[in-house]
Formats: sequence, structure tokens, C-alpha cells
Amino acid sequence: MAYKAPVRDLTFILSEVLEIDRYTNQPGFQDVSSELAQQILEEAGRFAEEVIAPINNPGDKEGCHWAEGGVVTTPKGWKEAYHQMVEAGWPSLMMDTAYGGQGMPSVIGSAVGQFTAGASAAFSMYPGLTAGAWAGIHANASEEIKQKYLPKMSTGEWTGTMNLTEPHCGTDLGMVRTKAVPNGDGSYSITGQKIWISAGEHDFADNIIHTVLARVEGAVPGIKGLSLFVVPKFLVNEDGSVGERNSLECAGLEHKMGIHGNATAVMQYDGAKGWLIGEEGRGMNNMFVVMNEARLGTGLQGLAIGAAAYQAAVEFANDRLQGRSLTGPKNPDGPADPIIVHPDVRRMLLEARAFVEGGQAFILWTALQADLEKSEDEAVATRAKDYMGLLTPVLKAYLTDKGFHVASLAMQVHGGSGYTEHFPASQYLRDARITMIYEGTNGIQALDLVGRKLPAQGGRAIMSWFAEIDAFVSENGQNESLKPFVDGLADAKKKLQDGTMWMMQNGMANPDNAGAASTDYLNIFGITALAYMWAQMAKVAQAQVDGGSTDPFYANKLMTGRYFVERILPDAGAHLAKLKTGADVLMAMPADQF
Amino acid sequence: MAYKAPVRDLTFILSEVLEIDRYTNQPGFQDVSSELAQQILEEAGRFAEEVIAPINNPGDKEGCHWAEGGVVTTPKGWKEAYHQMVEAGWPSLMMDTAYGGQGMPSVIGSAVGQFTAGASAAFSMYPGLTAGAWAGIHANASEEIKQKYLPKMSTGEWTGTMNLTEPHCGTDLGMVRTKAVPNGDGSYSITGQKIWISAGEHDFADNIIHTVLARVEGAVPGIKGLSLFVVPKFLVNEDGSVGERNSLECAGLEHKMGIHGNATAVMQYDGAKGWLIGEEGRGMNNMFVVMNEARLGTGLQGLAIGAAAYQAAVEFANDRLQGRSLTGPKNPDGPADPIIVHPDVRRMLLEARAFVEGGQAFILWTALQADLEKSEDEAVATRAKDYMGLLTPVLKAYLTDKGFHVASLAMQVHGGSGYTEHFPASQYLRDARITMIYEGTNGIQALDLVGRKLPAQGGRAIMSWFAEIDAFVSENGQNESLKPFVDGLADAKKKLQDGTMWMMQNGMANPDNAGAASTDYLNIFGITALAYMWAQMAKVAQAQVDGGSTDPFYANKLMTGRYFVERILPDAGAHLAKLKTGADVLMAMPADQF
Repeated sequence: MAYKAPVRDLTFILSEVLEIDRYTNQPGFQDVSSELAQQILEEAGRFAEEVIAPINNPGDKEGCHWAEGGVVTTPKGWKEAYHQMVEAGWPSLMMDTAYGGQGMPSVIGSAVGQFTAGASAAFSMYPGLTAGAWAGIHANASEEIKQKYLPKMSTGEWTGTMNLTEPHCGTDLGMVRTKAVPNGDGSYSITGQKIWISAGEHDFADNIIHTVLARVEGAVPGIKGLSLFVVPKFLVNEDGSVGERNSLECAGLEHKMGIHGNATAVMQYDGAKGWLIGEEGRGMNNMFVVMNEARLGTGLQGLAIGAAAYQAAVEFANDRLQGRSLTGPKNPDGPADPIIVHPDVRRMLLEARAFVEGGQAFILWTALQADLEKSEDEAVATRAKDYMGLLTPVLKAYLTDKGFHVASLAMQVHGGSGYTEHFPASQYLRDARITMIYEGTNGIQALDLVGRKLPAQGGRAIMSWFAEIDAFVSENGQNESLKPFVDGLADAKKKLQDGTMWMMQNGMANPDNAGAASTDYLNIFGITALAYMWAQMAKVAQAQVDGGSTDPFYANKLMTGRYFVERILPDAGAHLAKLKTGADVLMAMPADQF
Repeated sequence: MAYKAPVRDLTFILSEVLEIDRYTNQPGFQDVSSELAQQILEEAGRFAEEVIAPINNPGDKEGCHWAEGGVVTTPKGWKEAYHQMVEAGWPSLMMDTAYGGQGMPSVIGSAVGQFTAGASAAFSMYPGLTAGAWAGIHANASEEIKQKYLPKMSTGEWTGTMNLTEPHCGTDLGMVRTKAVPNGDGSYSITGQKIWISAGEHDFADNIIHTVLARVEGAVPGIKGLSLFVVPKFLVNEDGSVGERNSLECAGLEHKMGIHGNATAVMQYDGAKGWLIGEEGRGMNNMFVVMNEARLGTGLQGLAIGAAAYQAAVEFANDRLQGRSLTGPKNPDGPADPIIVHPDVRRMLLEARAFVEGGQAFILWTALQADLEKSEDEAVATRAKDYMGLLTPVLKAYLTDKGFHVASLAMQVHGGSGYTEHFPASQYLRDARITMIYEGTNGIQALDLVGRKLPAQGGRAIMSWFAEIDAFVSENGQNESLKPFVDGLADAKKKLQDGTMWMMQNGMANPDNAGAASTDYLNIFGITALAYMWAQMAKVAQAQVDGGSTDPFYANKLMTGRYFVERILPDAGAHLAKLKTGADVLMAMPADQF
């Protein structure tokens, strides 16, 4: 099974649905066009298919190796693939041109990112974490630090990491114990243990630039006492060359259910030299700056794994001969029909596809908001910032839930073969599962949505989004062939509005009501977001069909969208009913009776 | 994390809900009483906790070993645990007393089976497959064969297997190629390859009795040409002792996502000596006889894994200190509150528990039907047979889907810890996933339900079941405190009736409509079945509470049941809406456009 980057699906979204050619007046879009996007995506797709995809499954089987002294070796061929990636310049695609990057907008980078993650989720963690660390430094560090680290991280010569979690604290970072003692020369001595550090140690690069959350000695307890530091594996000399080894070491690797090719490290800092990023006590604020993009990246990863799993399932369903169609043989000369003749197999495939293609649009739509945040038009920037804040937790949680669901459907299509490691289905399922957990568990995303994002600025973001949807509905409501999509969207939005109202009325009175409703609320939100994406895609596809296009791509889009409307939208009603049951049923049982 | 067998939950169902003391006049129940059941369950629970559970996770990590010559070694300690099991007599619990068994009814055996599978699903495959092979021989073989093999299989001295699948056919057994050539002395020479043979080779027993589906040379193609054979690893001498080695070998073990402790074998038969079970050409009919029990066993296994996963999640949620309750600190002297204070964590735990406890009742209720099939009262026997036929595919598919869902919820409660192999959550998730596939994929169960079981005898089974539910509703509808349970049940049943009607009207016209609707239909069926179980459990628990019992067990049952009613029942409506969309949306896309 060879991975095929979904170039056509994503260029369709970029060029025809989002119409990125409209944005040449926006910062970062000066040189961007549909043609350029197409070229980049084709190149990136080829790279993902030819260089990254082939190492994915062998890397899963081999895993990473840890040796005494904290030396980590990645699976066979991974280092070489990474070096090819650096040579081809992919890591710098979205980086700031002031620090050696190519300055491409997020909407392009998020398309390329889907190919990388679809080809190998574990491999994509290495450039992914570099991008996270890069963004943290870029947003908050002094110019000196930026000049020292960013250019080589842009090219991928050096990689980066994010060190937050400790054994006793993951979600609740206020309990971080890693401490930083000022050395008097502007540097700090960092001591403590960090766990689950993705790409924490490996053999890809000459240096690894850790960003580390720590508490300066004497700082206040809780999250307000945290600061963010840059702590390189090797100190960097004045001339930019790699100098002496810092006092930090990879103390071991986690044994995980999946993403075996990603070195998930236990990092031990023993008085390692670090430099403050931004101000003391602003560590969490600094992290928040990069959080939206990191969460977008995780949602993207979960969905991209699902997209790859869908492809594998389609191939299997067309190849595997077993039984006969309920309406008579479709492969009469063969010993049996391919299992794709069965409605229930098609149900699984179309369910997968409807989530995958709707999710692809949701990712690019949201990435475009990240770009428009930088607009000089204040109204545009504000709206984009609002949307990004509101929809990022929805995207992260909903798309990773569905990425895993899709991977599980793909395994089910495979039957017993899928459960064996001879087929790729198991790896996709195991790899996809982590995306629901890291970068903030999906439950935390739901709490962030209802507790922080929804009420911000008096609900300005959701009101603006609702207005946009209403406008779409009234503009397109008269188009008879779009009716199922428009009506479905209007209905989902109505349910979301209903749930929002319930949340406002009941969450204030008892915050446990908001917590109890949060996951169902987020699901209605995700369904509505995908309904909006599908309505937009259907509009374009229908116009093409109406204009006489015989390209099956558009007809397929409409058929897949119809599955979404008919067989996924009904879940919104169930979630709304559950949401309204409130906290009582959850809180009544004493903890010791569980 | 130590596994605790849910003895109280199951004895509650046996004694108070199913009231097994009522059945002393039924075959197999002469010596059965609530007291005896309690004793057996306590013993079995202890055995599962102390002997089986400790080897489960180490066995997952180590896996089985294959060596040249087809020698298979199970993980460290597994052989010893199995021998202890044999010594304690557990394998023979449900076997016919005429062949060395203890003759306990299925309703007791299915309770004990939940402990074994909950303690170690992979380990439970060894006695599980023996029971399957035993049942096939017991139902169909000649007295001579029965006497030769069954007594030692009853005790567990010998184990058994079921050999159906071949590389090119799993679901579609009509394509089986393994051939049987008569030797002229009553025996046959069996040649062919069988795959995915659970417990196919191991170091537990002196002999392994394979039951093998093969085609007698010259037989008609398709399933009507298949016959079932008993093919022992070692031939058995006249005196019952183990003789010479038969020409069969384990050619390798599958590398699987989970159940690593189960030796899933590729079996190579090279002119191995076998003896016909029953008549030539009746192989599939012979298999069908044991299929209901095998499917019940698989559903049981999926749910039991979920039950164990739930326990692990509860322990973690009470131990893990992270963040604070939304309504103020609940553990003010600690650095943070245990995460069980959060409504969304409780949502996950209660969702898990509502499926687990509802499923436990559904399993025992169905197992009781298997027992009542043997009733001398023809009306009782017919009804039980109807129920068993109708509800077995529902139980298998719905409970394995939910067992996996529960295992995934349990992992989510663990956060990042759950994704590492230091905690048991990963193993539960990986082990649970196979139950949705083997013994007939869940899609096949749904087809069996709508294509075969539902229409049998003009729908007699479902009409009888609906009448039973209607009677329950009208008997208990006036009880104010039971109202949510009774109303919820009535509503679910109404939706199932509605879906059944749709199926009858549309499935006849186009069989693809039945296939398209089958999985949603099965889900509504599963929800209704669990609603019925919860209503019955609530009735007993409410009566205890009304009678002044202060045992929190009853209050907990009611609270968990309330979760089911408020937060799971709403899914029935969504499934019904999806069901009614029919086949068009699934069948429109050409196969090559997926």
C-alpha cells in the first residue's frame, strides 16, 4: 500500500473554496497564487510519497533505540530521510524570512503538513516540534537569542523541542518543579526532569534546542511563577558554531502504543545552562502564544493519519474478494466480489471519507485565519483572531477524535488482516490514538472552549461566526440543488445556538454544568464546522457540475458531502439532548463509589 | 493496578434480576441456587484475580515464541497458570457430565467467563477455543469420537481449536480449499493451510484437538461441499493414550496489535489424519450449531476487557492529582484535586460503567436463554431459541463495539500515561479491538441480524421480544421512581419497531437497503436491549432503596442506570435517522472513485 498525498483535494480547497488568490494584499500572500500553491503541493506530495512514506511502517516495527549515556538512534533510514528533507528546504517553508525561512502562509504550510503527517505521523514530529520551539522563541525571545538559534532551526540543521510535562504534572503545569537558578551572567542553571518530550533526543541534527518551562528560584508558586528558557543540547559559540555539551541528558525513552519512530524522551536537566525567553514569570503566556498553532498541528496530524488509513481501506476493499453483492454478482468471472460491493463496507468508507475531506477543509479554513490575523485591516485581523481562538480547540479535539474513528473504521474494513501487523491499519490506529491526548487532552480542549473561548469578549467570536453562517445560508438557500447542504448547515447551527444558550443559562449558575456539557457541546460545534465546510465545497462542486464539468472529482465531492449531511449530521441532535441533561447525573456519585 | 472480578455485580444479576432460583425445574439447574452461584463466582473471581490477572500484562509484553519445527512457547508463567486452572477444574465447569464435565448452566459459565476474560483476554482464548471445539464435537460427532476426545478436553488436559479461515477466505468460507481424501479406513487425509488459528499451538497440553473445515475430494464447490473433521496433533491410541505425531505443524505465528499472549497460528496440514464429525457436506451446519455460543463468548470477552479497563481508569482518576474542581478545591491540603472531581472525567467513567454493567446483564440474560433452550416445556424452549438466535448477533457486535469504546475512554481518562505501556490502558485497548473482528466481523453480525435472524419464522422472535418488553412497560409504568427507565425503554423500543418497519418495507424492494441500514439497526437493537436490562436492574435496586436498604450498591446502580437513560439513549434517534436514509447515498459512487 503506497501512500498518495491528497494533492487534488487540498488544491481544490485552496484555489476553489478558499480562493486564496483573493488575498494577495494580505501580509505573507504577496507571492502566493493558486498556481504556486499547486506547484508546492505537488512537490511536497511527491516528497511525502517517495521519501517519507516508505520509512513509516518499518520505523514503527523497529522503533527508536536508547543507549547508556542518553544516545538515541532513530530507525533505519530515518536520519537519511530527514537530511533529504532539510536539503529540499521543507522545514523552512513557513518560517519568517528574517530568520532564514521562506515565509509561506500557514494555509500553505498546513496543506504540506497534512502530507508529511499522513506519510508518517511519527516522522512529522521532528519538524513539528522544531516548528513549535521556533515559534516560542520567535514570538518572545530577544533578538540576540533569535539570531543565535532561529536560522539553523529554520533550515532544520538544528531541531527543537517543547519541555512542559513532568511526572506529576501534565495538564496542571502550575505544579512544575524544574527550577532555574540565575548564574549572574544572564544565564540560568536548569535542574529537573521532563517527560514525554517528543523528539527530545535523536541522531538527526548537530544540535537540539530545547525550550523548557521552569520556575526561577524564589518565584511564586503556581503558573505565574513559571518562565520559559532556551536550553540547547550543545552550547552555541559566538560564531554560531556548536560548542561544549550542556548538562542535560535523555534518561530514557517511553514505550508507547504507537508513534514508535518518534523518540519520546525523559529529559534530565542537571544544572544545564539556559537563557530566558521573554520575561521571568511569563512562561505560560509565552506558551499560549504558540498554543493555537500547535493545536492546529495536532488536529491536522490526527486527521492526516485518518486520511492515510482511508486510502489503505479503499485499496483493501477493492482487492479483497469475499462473498457476493446482495443484488447479484458484480465480478461474475472471479471466485467472489470485491468487498466494496457491500453497502456496509461502503458505509464505513464514506463515513471515513466524509470526515477526512470535511476535516481537510476545516484545517485549511482555520489556517487561513492564522494568516489573516496578521492583516493590516483591523476588522479582518480581529475576526480572524476571534475565529482562531474559538475554533482551534474544536478543530484539535473533533478532528483527532474523528481521525481515530476513521482509523478504526479502516481497520474494520480490513477484517482480521487489519489486526495483524502485515497491513498498515494497526499502525494508523495506534498512531492516531495519541493525537486525542497530547497538546491538551480533548476534554481539556472542550473545557477551554466553553470556559475561555466562548465567553471571551462577550461571545463576540461565536456571534461573528454565526453571522457568517447565516449570510451563507441566506445567500444560497434558494439554490435547489444545494438545499440539503444549506438546510443541514442551518439545522446544525440552530442546535449549536440552542446548546450555547443552555450553556450560558446553566453554566453560570453551576460551573459543573459547563464541564458536564463541554464535550457534547464541542461535538455539535465540530459537526457545525464540518457542515459549513461541506456546504462551501458543495457549492463549488455543484457550480462545476451545473457548468457542464464531467470531471468525476466534483460529482464525488457532492456524493461524499451527501453522506455527511444524511448520516453524520443526525448526531448533532443526540449530542444536544445529552448536553441538556446537565451535571447532576455526573456529580451525584461519591468518588469512592466509582 | 490489580484486577477485581465484579462478583457483586454479577451475583446481583443472577440472584436478584434473573432470579435463577426460579429455574430449578429446568434441565441443568437441578443443583443450581443463588448460594451455589455466589460460591462459584467468589472462587472463580479469586482465581482470576490471583492466578490469571498477574500474568496478563507481562504476557502482552513478552508474547509467544515460535521456533523451527513449529514449536510454540507461551509467555513466562502462562503454562503454570493454565495447569493451575486445570487442577482447579475450571475448564470443565459447563461441560456435559456424560463426558467428564460439571454440567453447570451457561448462565453460570458466562459469569465465570467474564472474570477469566477480564483478567486476561489472551489467556482466556485457550480454554475458550477448547470449549468451541468441544461443542462442535459434542453436538455432531459419533459416540466413539466423543468418548475419545471429550473427557480430556473437558478437564483441560487437552485443548482444542477451530480451523476455518484460509488466506483467501475468512467471511466467505465457501472458498475453502483445504481438502480431505478418504483413506478407506474411515479416516481422511487432510491437506491445506489454515490461518488465524487461536491457540493453534502452545506448550500447555499433551495434545491439541483441531477441528478443521475441509472439502472432501470431489465434493461440490461452495459451502455445501464442506465437512468438519477432528484432527488431533497427536493421534490417540485405543487406550486413550497419546500416540504418534500427526502430519500437521504450526508454520508461524501472526504479529498482531494485541492479544499477544494468544498464539495465533498459521497451521499447515500435510496429509494429516482426520475423522469426520457428523456427515460429509454438513460442515457449515455443524459450525452453525456452536456459533451462537462462540459469538456470545466473543461479546463477553469484549465487554469483560472494557470492565477491566474501567477499573483501571477509576483507580487512575482517584490517584492522579491535577487541577482543581470547577466548584472549589476538594482536596485543599493536597497540591491538586484528584481528576475524578471533573465532570468530564466522570462523564467518561460513567459512560464506561453504564455500558459495562448493562452489558453484563445482557450477557447473563442471553446465556440464560441458551440454558432455557433445553427446557422440556416446548413454549419456553422455542422462545429461548428465538431470543438466542435474534439477540446473539446484537450482543456480539454491540458489546464488542462498546467494549472497545470503553477501553478507549479508559485510556483517555489516563491522559498521556495511558498511551505508555507502563499502564494497562494500552493493552486493554489493543486487546479489545480484535473482538469487533473475529467470530464474524460486526458488519457480518448486522447482516446476519437483518438478513437471517429478523425474518426467521415471519419475525416471530422479535414480536415475542417486543411483547415481553411491552408487558414490562405496562407492569411498571405506574411506578413514579422507575418512570425514566420505563419511558426510556418504551421510547427505544418504539424506535426499534419503527426501524424494523422501515427495514421490512425497504429491504424487500432492494436488499442493499437492508445492508445499508444494518449497522444502525443493530445499534438501536443494542440500545434497546441495554435499556431493557437497565430497567430490570433499576426495578430491583429501586425496590431495595424503597425497602430501606442503605447499601450504596443499589443507589450506585440507579445512578449508573440514570446515566444510561439520559446520555446513551439519545443515540437511538440519531441511528434511526441514519437508517432511514437508505442505500442510495452509499451505492451511488462507482467503486473506482473511492
